[in-house]
Amino acid sequence: MEAEVVAVGSELLAGQIANTNARFISEALASVGVVVTQQTSVGDDVGRVERALRDALGRADVVVVSGGLGPTHDDLTREGLAAATRRPLQRRDDLVAALEERFCRMGRTMSPSNLQQADLPEGAVTIENPVGTAPGIFLEHAGRLVYVVPGVPDEMVAMMNGFVLPDLASRGGGAAVVTRTLRVVGIPESDLADRLAPVVGPNVGIYASQGEMRVCLTAPASDAGGLPALVQAVRDLLGPLVYGEGADTLEQVVSDLLRERGLRLAVAESLTGGMLASRLVGVPGASDILLAGYVAYSAAAKIRDLGVPPETIERHGLVSTETAVAMAAGARARAEADVALSTTGEAGPAPAEAPVGRVCVGMAWEGGASAWTFAMGGSREAIRRRTCTYALNRLRLWLLGPTGDSGG
Amino acid sequence: MEAEVVAVGSELLAGQIANTNARFISEALASVGVVVTQQTSVGDDVGRVERALRDALGRADVVVVSGGLGPTHDDLTREGLAAATRRPLQRRDDLVAALEERFCRMGRTMSPSNLQQADLPEGAVTIENPVGTAPGIFLEHAGRLVYVVPGVPDEMVAMMNGFVLPDLASRGGGAAVVTRTLRVVGIPESDLADRLAPVVGPNVGIYASQGEMRVCLTAPASDAGGLPALVQAVRDLLGPLVYGEGADTLEQVVSDLLRERGLRLAVAESLTGGMLASRLVGVPGASDILLAGYVAYSAAAKIRDLGVPPETIERHGLVSTETAVAMAAGARARAEADVALSTTGEAGPAPAEAPVGRVCVGMAWEGGASAWTFAMGGSREAIRRRTCTYALNRLRLWLLGPTGDSGG
Repeated sequence: MEAEVVAVGSELLAGQIANTNARFISEALASVGVVVTQQTSVGDDVGRVERALRDALGRADVVVVSGGLGPTHDDLTREGLAAATRRPLQRRDDLVAALEERFCRMGRTMSPSNLQQADLPEGAVTIENPVGTAPGIFLEHAGRLVYVVPGVPDEMVAMMNGFVLPDLASRGGGAAVVTRTLRVVGIPESDLADRLAPVVGPNVGIYASQGEMRVCLTAPASDAGGLPALVQAVRDLLGPLVYGEGADTLEQVVSDLLRERGLRLAVAESLTGGMLASRLVGVPGASDILLAGYVAYSAAAKIRDLGVPPETIERHGLVSTETAVAMAAGARARAEADVALSTTGEAGPAPAEAPVGRVCVGMAWEGGASAWTFAMGGSREAIRRRTCTYALNRLRLWLLGPTGDSGG
Repeated sequence: MEAEVVAVGSELLAGQIANTNARFISEALASVGVVVTQQTSVGDDVGRVERALRDALGRADVVVVSGGLGPTHDDLTREGLAAATRRPLQRRDDLVAALEERFCRMGRTMSPSNLQQADLPEGAVTIENPVGTAPGIFLEHAGRLVYVVPGVPDEMVAMMNGFVLPDLASRGGGAAVVTRTLRVVGIPESDLADRLAPVVGPNVGIYASQGEMRVCLTAPASDAGGLPALVQAVRDLLGPLVYGEGADTLEQVVSDLLRERGLRLAVAESLTGGMLASRLVGVPGASDILLAGYVAYSAAAKIRDLGVPPETIERHGLVSTETAVAMAAGARARAEADVALSTTGEAGPAPAEAPVGRVCVGMAWEGGASAWTFAMGGSREAIRRRTCTYALNRLRLWLLGPTGDSGG
């Protein structure tokens, strides 16, 4: 089965946002063996939406549309789809009732413009929206499958995973390609490419973002049996640089390791300023393993809340391995944690305590402590994000024990 | 002038990368008054490239194509453009010579496949590539302007800035459009649409993401004088719901207000887990205004680090306005801050302390305290993000004083 993705939204055409929905949808469709042959973005104009949908329906077996389902006057996907398929819009009483019930439950009054969310082209059915008010739309038209999902990323993802992918998979569509993705951290991208030279080929893709990398391995479904051997070959070449697979996140892997080992964590953050704690709290069940977090951006907070000795700061500076170790030790003692991580550094834009991009990460545990110092480039945000990734990876390698501690 | 952007590359369709080139090109074209009406991505298939270009040439005055100009067998944009315009490809001796010269200068041998980079459709001219080997292509065809730039972002940007934008500007093409964006928070999207009914029209766009909204106002450059009046009309309708313009962020506006008033902040976070502090630390100069942050996810941390009385938690629960106030008061006292914010709530996925989506935000200042409780839907991440936005907005309204505190 071949698919096209149509994104609706004038903000895409003005360049105000990148079309990350098209990317997610395309990757998701590939995972169930549906090949995307074209992506189109059009603005909030009913004529252009109609034309884009009619063109896509003329070419592809499956059309996934995102955006334009909201309650405002420029949400025109329902109208555009009705026009492209020559099916009249019908207001559904059951959808009106569901909207009223939902607003009532939230203690809000429904505005008249919300009612258009109860309109569907004739013959269409709704796709449940577990996280928002606008239902999605599913329509079989002239042998084509049309799925319309919201433009809000959370809602789009929930609907793709909850309905579109299972539905397509059940139709058994594609000349499927099977894919496995390994998640890698702790090595520069160019070194990773060199390390993977023995297996490199069109079925091995390396993608870097935000200090982490993904190695995507693909095989035709007819040759799926060969994929495990390729995965193993990559794992053998990379060892503990591979932290997970698929949708794993570094914070989730670290949280699982802490839970397995019955260890509880505290974090003390200067330049990352809560981002490290926030990544850990983003994993459900964080209360089991994260005992406390301290954002100690100033010297005073480091001394008061973390017990960093003033003379350590005076002698070595705020951005030093000594201060990082004292921060971690202080957070660990205060929260009565088993292990603690700390970050301190200069994220810019202007140098203050140290050159921009100089970062120290500290770790303290019962009977020991370590710290690492390094320099990195990039924006304030990128420096902070990569510092969190570095700290989480250091903790992961420590939790894996001596065998893990060779991965950088 | 209306333009379409065509991106060529199978990696876009596999969802392996986001189409950030289309975003850059669209924003750049808007800056010279050329309106983008459609973006299309197609794979490295000569038939599909040909069809996408022919379709775009049938609709738009200007077509900007990115990608598919490299030296490998899957770089097919030259062939696709030749087919779409029915102009034969011609090998240009001057381009062969330039390639040879360039490879010689780099001390590398030119491979035969590089020679295809010397092929151009009849009538086309090259666009200089200051940072790579592949020249771009410019072609006037049947009254349309076609610009082909490389897919490598650096090279694309260099060519857009060095040739495409100046060339379009010199043609005086655009019925240029001027844009202003107002940033809004504290009202549901559908209510915002109703509130803006008096000014609504095709020049007023409303975009929601992550609990905030943008109101984009546009006017033709010829009528740019009318834009300030429209901006003022929207500001009059929305009052303090408008927190900023353009690239302003809520955390930056709040930081500026704190700094103006000489006030210093502490934050105490349960469900947001550092995300609130992290947003504030993301603004350069945060050390002036953020004295400390406490991530107190467990009851024990709330009691130990924030001095929340155990009986408050016992009597009212972890997710209560009483606990939120005690957390804010505790953080304020501990950090010796002027004002403090707190968050507590149940972000899910499973209910533990309270129903999923129930959130309390607290604020404490000298001589006073407030708290708000509300329910919201969405993913764990969305609930946490919108809680931060809500808390920042509460602080903003408090900083604005009594006149600001009507905006919800």
